[in-house]
Amino acid sequence: MPSVQQDQVTPHGVIERLPLYLNSLIHLRNEGCGTVSSARLSELTEVNPAQIRRDLAHFGHFGLRGVGYDTGKLAREIQQIIGADREQLVAVVGAGHLGCAMVQYDGLRTHGFVVDALFDNDSDKIGTTIAGIVVSDVADIEEIVAQRGIRFGVLAVPADVAQAVADRLCAAGIRAIINYSTAFVVVPETVALHNTDPARELLHTLYYLTKSEGMAGAKR
Amino acid sequence: MPSVQQDQVTPHGVIERLPLYLNSLIHLRNEGCGTVSSARLSELTEVNPAQIRRDLAHFGHFGLRGVGYDTGKLAREIQQIIGADREQLVAVVGAGHLGCAMVQYDGLRTHGFVVDALFDNDSDKIGTTIAGIVVSDVADIEEIVAQRGIRFGVLAVPADVAQAVADRLCAAGIRAIINYSTAFVVVPETVALHNTDPARELLHTLYYLTKSEGMAGAKR
Repeated sequence: MPSVQQDQVTPHGVIERLPLYLNSLIHLRNEGCGTVSSARLSELTEVNPAQIRRDLAHFGHFGLRGVGYDTGKLAREIQQIIGADREQLVAVVGAGHLGCAMVQYDGLRTHGFVVDALFDNDSDKIGTTIAGIVVSDVADIEEIVAQRGIRFGVLAVPADVAQAVADRLCAAGIRAIINYSTAFVVVPETVALHNTDPARELLHTLYYLTKSEGMAGAKR
Repeated sequence: MPSVQQDQVTPHGVIERLPLYLNSLIHLRNEGCGTVSSARLSELTEVNPAQIRRDLAHFGHFGLRGVGYDTGKLAREIQQIIGADREQLVAVVGAGHLGCAMVQYDGLRTHGFVVDALFDNDSDKIGTTIAGIVVSDVADIEEIVAQRGIRFGVLAVPADVAQAVADRLCAAGIRAIINYSTAFVVVPETVALHNTDPARELLHTLYYLTKSEGMAGAKR
């Protein structure tokens, strides 16, 4: 959940679905599909077609009846709406397994996110290179983030140091933080915070599994 | 987005927020807070208080006016609704950085998810122990998953093998798959699929950042 904004016009759910549409459109475009129906987009995103049409109508008139959406054009439009039409520099703090996974994740560059700095406090890791990025000392966060104009910070650190690292990222001028730790982190109102949690994805899926098994049980 | 279900009664957004509430309630309970107001719960989850009350009303009457919610009781109720009141076994496929991060992630066990198997196809990794879990050969997925009754599978593999691994997990009897790869994976209707993507979190946050900067620019 971001904290900077209160978007007056566009419901939060719509914004959550835009990246889903964008991912599918880029996938289709890369596979050579010039146009896509909302039915096909629905299959890929598992959002129902009427919802897709309603969501996109928030931003203008897209698509032609009977033809569908121009994949490349709609992808570019959504990129502009999101602001993903230009490069965004990212700093990852924590060169453990999660931080390294983020640095190596090929899905970020697709959307213009470039991991430009990786920080750790372990002297054995500082100075080593991971996926082409030299690990920097956390002591240099302020200097490096400010110097390079990095706007995104990813917290891939243990919960007990997450707040301290977040404070330093904010002081360094970071505009948005993705928190992968289990800590409840507080940031100034001017910084967007998104807490993410693998357990949440599992719980969400578990709900539907439990419900479907409950229904199956009731039918017996 | 899960695929098994079409929940007729409870909106998808409500289900997405339940784990947020649950995380906050467990956090508060562990910190010794016996009750919590919807205002405080709102601060922790960044969902507005009226929405919290509406969401919980889908499942029954919780909380007392002027007193708030009993943290332990509401946590247990939500756990029952989700099905997180019992242990769930998880198989992680891919012992790279992401897979190892999942195995070590302390937020899973909080919710009863126990990583019980970790698979890889790298003979250097097979047989080694990561966070107490012995890495098994992907060739043994069917046998191990079926034998142990594992219901959750996590795809932490490269995109080009994701579908093949998903097929094997489904054949082995897995009921739910969390896909961390960038691949578009197809599963039978009887299996819940949740695609997750770090880029989506960043894009979502970027939208609000772009918008707030646009508004700040317009005010100048």
